[in-house]
Amino acid sequence: RINEQRLWDTLMEMGDIGGTEKGGCNRLAGTDLDKQARDLFVAWCEACGCTVEVDKIGNIFARRPGTDNSLPAVGTGSHLDTQPTGGKFDGVFGVLAGVEVLRTLHDNKIETPTAMEFSVWTNEEGSRFQPAMQGSGTYVGRFDLETELNKTDVDGIRLGDELERIGYLGEMELGSRHMGAFFEAHIEQGPILEDEEKSIGIVRLGQGIRWYNVEVVGRPSHSGTTPMHLRKDAMLAASAIVTEINKIALRYDNGLGTVGYMNVWPNSRNTIPGKVNFSADLRNPKPDVLLTMHEELVTFCDQIAKEYGLDVNLDPFWYFAPVEFNASDDVKAATEKLGYSHMDIYAGAGHDACYMADLVPTGMIFTPCLNGISHNEAEYSSPEECAAGANVLLHAMLEASER
Amino acid sequence: RINEQRLWDTLMEMGDIGGTEKGGCNRLAGTDLDKQARDLFVAWCEACGCTVEVDKIGNIFARRPGTDNSLPAVGTGSHLDTQPTGGKFDGVFGVLAGVEVLRTLHDNKIETPTAMEFSVWTNEEGSRFQPAMQGSGTYVGRFDLETELNKTDVDGIRLGDELERIGYLGEMELGSRHMGAFFEAHIEQGPILEDEEKSIGIVRLGQGIRWYNVEVVGRPSHSGTTPMHLRKDAMLAASAIVTEINKIALRYDNGLGTVGYMNVWPNSRNTIPGKVNFSADLRNPKPDVLLTMHEELVTFCDQIAKEYGLDVNLDPFWYFAPVEFNASDDVKAATEKLGYSHMDIYAGAGHDACYMADLVPTGMIFTPCLNGISHNEAEYSSPEECAAGANVLLHAMLEASER
Ligand SMILES: NC(=O)NCCC(=O)O
Ligand SMILES: NC(=O)NCCC(=O)O
Repeated sequence: RINEQRLWDTLMEMGDIGGTEKGGCNRLAGTDLDKQARDLFVAWCEACGCTVEVDKIGNIFARRPGTDNSLPAVGTGSHLDTQPTGGKFDGVFGVLAGVEVLRTLHDNKIETPTAMEFSVWTNEEGSRFQPAMQGSGTYVGRFDLETELNKTDVDGIRLGDELERIGYLGEMELGSRHMGAFFEAHIEQGPILEDEEKSIGIVRLGQGIRWYNVEVVGRPSHSGTTPMHLRKDAMLAASAIVTEINKIALRYDNGLGTVGYMNVWPNSRNTIPGKVNFSADLRNPKPDVLLTMHEELVTFCDQIAKEYGLDVNLDPFWYFAPVEFNASDDVKAATEKLGYSHMDIYAGAGHDACYMADLVPTGMIFTPCLNGISHNEAEYSSPEECAAGANVLLHAMLEASER
Repeated sequence: RINEQRLWDTLMEMGDIGGTEKGGCNRLAGTDLDKQARDLFVAWCEACGCTVEVDKIGNIFARRPGTDNSLPAVGTGSHLDTQPTGGKFDGVFGVLAGVEVLRTLHDNKIETPTAMEFSVWTNEEGSRFQPAMQGSGTYVGRFDLETELNKTDVDGIRLGDELERIGYLGEMELGSRHMGAFFEAHIEQGPILEDEEKSIGIVRLGQGIRWYNVEVVGRPSHSGTTPMHLRKDAMLAASAIVTEINKIALRYDNGLGTVGYMNVWPNSRNTIPGKVNFSADLRNPKPDVLLTMHEELVTFCDQIAKEYGLDVNLDPFWYFAPVEFNASDDVKAATEKLGYSHMDIYAGAGHDACYMADLVPTGMIFTPCLNGISHNEAEYSSPEECAAGANVLLHAMLEASER
């Protein structure tokens, strides 16, 4: 079994890097704080005898050799970047559960048949740079390396430049780790495990996600002199689309629709907005339903453009198809062996494991989180809940290594 | 008559300070560009023998003596600050029509019975600092000086500090100029004079304006894991209010309603917005109608707060009551003497003259603007149209001086 107190202490120490007054964490991808968090992870892994390599999109891999290093390794990992209003657990818990597994093996001098790999993936959140799971998606070949390195944040700063600046633009080829299985522990980020009073969620599926950039181009003009019928008000059209995205989501079982980002130009209170840029995020576990939701959004945007006499440019730049986790049974076996209560569940959020499932058998372990709240500074998972997840991770990895 | 070419040249020279690629102007109040524009105005006035003073809110007054300086002066003026997507005419035309009047008097060695005063008012636009007409409103005593100097822009920079930094925080007491009449020339900023093919608008009324800061406080949480019914989505509530503001405006004759400014927090595409701040701008020429519009907005915000289970804080921080211009007949007499086509009109925008009307008989002269477009880089008024307005200003001022 892992050491509950030690795991908790590492979570709190890591959470202080970018820690907020309200007990959350604001550590965006590619920032100085991201570098500090990465450096701490690397130091902890090296202290346990790992060798560390960084790939061309900044993903970090720490390797603990096995007894037969010709066998493919068993991997785990998650991300250290957070939302601007993030908590101390989203992603970080998965990385540090890995570190805790590593320390448990190291301290107990446990030799494993295969090597064990502990990883940190670049920009999983998709908050500063898009899309989400950018590091893992690029690693598995879903995205083009150059395109992703050239992505910029709202201030026009390139991801590639930021990785270089913080010392994490590596040389290692993408997709080149020799792995045979991958596990990721993560807080659920939703309310179901808590409601059902289960300690562990066996994640069977990652739901589908569609991300859009929407640009509404109207005509800036004076709020006091432009009659209502002569306006091309980009804000009004944008608001109609925000309202419709909510309606589209409500129309379908398990449908979700969100506008989290908006930028208004020229953003002056007596000038009718000439341009509004905003994001759209549609989700559903069923790909056909998600496609219908997508089509409804496309149709509505066309309709609004005609109705308001302005341009609506909808860029559907990311589609993440629902993914099934085919190493879930390893997770279930480890959970039952340890005697934790559990249930099958699907992931509402995207995770690095969702992309790793392209390459190797992959499993995810969910732990409960208080009031189902995540992407919020109040995000919380108790020491016991975290320990249970890390124990399941340890035993799932051992089982896969021994097989 | 004034010199059309010279007036046009000063407009183009001034417009280069903050000039944009698309031929507009971006010269926000209190910036280095504002300083450059003010310095140019002061230099032009001093070259014609004026003495220049600056008051405690940064308004500039240039005085050309008359034959009897115990008589109250005749004043004119407008503003040099622009919108972020402003044109080269809004405000600037009124200031430079004044400079052209001054040069005409100076070159022709015309002695006037009373002194003539040429002024520039601080932050008329209300874009960077609120409210609009801040300099003239403070001068006439509508606003408290300390409160206004302490107002901050979105980056938290104080107006008082900016005025000091650019050298325009003066010593002169507010309201202390000895004036007997005030005239302001301005482009119409709307489509009516152009539609009616008139050269001059005799402005009879400035319509009422109500400005609000609205803050919607919800709860940030994950876009992929928070079920629709558990959300407190500040963006969704804000969009409902934007839509309603439009409906309120459409419900009344001449009603206008605009949301020009919005700021979303944390503004991350997979976090449901926890807070949205935005502006509201309601206008109507009839005070009772504007009050009804106001009450409808208050009621709707309360309703949305209940419906969505979140906080909606509506701060109605500025009410500008409709104002009648009681020196309009001087403007009409000058227009008829010069033989320009004209019509009575009301001002959709607020103007510095609206506040000066508190202290002295005041008149406004409108000139047409292309397609009725203002607060847009495409704003345009032809050399002839500008010259007509400046000629009317000259003769209205002479008439008032001689009376
Ligand atoms: N785990 C997590 O919050 N990932 C962010 C990507 C998403 O939006 O689902
Ligand atoms: N003239 C002008 O555009 N003034 C700005 C104040 C307003 O919003 O009406």
